[in-house]
Amino acid sequence: MIYFITGNKNKLAEVQTVLPEVEQLDIDLPEIQELDAQKIIQAKLIEALNHQQGEFIVEDTSLHLDCLNGLPGPLIKWFLQTIGNQGLAQLAEKLGNDKAEAVTMIGYAKSQNEMQFFEGRIKGRIVNPRGETKFGWDPIFIPEGYDQTFAELGVEKKNMISMRRIALNKLKEFLAANK
Amino acid sequence: MIYFITGNKNKLAEVQTVLPEVEQLDIDLPEIQELDAQKIIQAKLIEALNHQQGEFIVEDTSLHLDCLNGLPGPLIKWFLQTIGNQGLAQLAEKLGNDKAEAVTMIGYAKSQNEMQFFEGRIKGRIVNPRGETKFGWDPIFIPEGYDQTFAELGVEKKNMISMRRIALNKLKEFLAANK
Repeated sequence: MIYFITGNKNKLAEVQTVLPEVEQLDIDLPEIQELDAQKIIQAKLIEALNHQQGEFIVEDTSLHLDCLNGLPGPLIKWFLQTIGNQGLAQLAEKLGNDKAEAVTMIGYAKSQNEMQFFEGRIKGRIVNPRGETKFGWDPIFIPEGYDQTFAELGVEKKNMISMRRIALNKLKEFLAANK
Repeated sequence: MIYFITGNKNKLAEVQTVLPEVEQLDIDLPEIQELDAQKIIQAKLIEALNHQQGEFIVEDTSLHLDCLNGLPGPLIKWFLQTIGNQGLAQLAEKLGNDKAEAVTMIGYAKSQNEMQFFEGRIKGRIVNPRGETKFGWDPIFIPEGYDQTFAELGVEKKNMISMRRIALNKLKEFLAANK
């Protein structure tokens, strides 16, 4: 059994689209203060392995703004809580640089000695909020090659091209090759 | 014996000025991702109490910018690492609001049931870096009622009026009353 450690139903659904065998494990693991997603995930996997036996997946999705030299990164949650999507869009505008990158890192572990990390990256730009606000910063991120925000594209189209899907596909390949 | 958990010699010296009996304990405790300094400190105190017996002090000093609705707060470390003092000053300038508040929170614990928190706050404003960069964001913060940055004021003058000193004096009073 592979457990995906998350409290987020949207993320769970997206993971199960690619890996139907995965089950949710909704335990609340402390998130360490770090800009390095791999370190954050590693700490959570170690906690999970101490907590129970099994195979675990942890994911972290971060948004990196060029105008903030890579911030907020994994700290995006706190930016949304304080200045919100409107505030992020205003920063990009006032600082004169709308370039951004969305990154998903997935960590997989069976034991502390068998951890694997899979990354998905997608470039894009930051605009004023457009589309329904259902999920994080989806209303302000337009992926490269598109002219709609993730929120405007809708969950199905987004999930086909997203940074999370790219990382998930890598994980799927790994699991298939290591059965 | 009271242990101050820190790796920072400057902070240690400042604490020992007010509380000469305090000794340094340089253990590396994970910092949880939070905007609430009290929760960050509490998690560290619990770790410390699990680690050894004794009385412990943990401090967190944060910088809150009005233009970022309170960010970076305890996340200041990552802002300094990415955009630096120059970047922070630029944000305040471009967003047209230089107001800020510096906050020190000190946690003290003998056991998990006896935790106390002491806070020091000082208002000020953000300017382009001035003075020698020795300590964090000292070059960009001018405390209210002054026209020099903490860096320009120098460590002695700063320590007489700082948010850390205010919090430390509260801790000192508490310790004297609870001998």
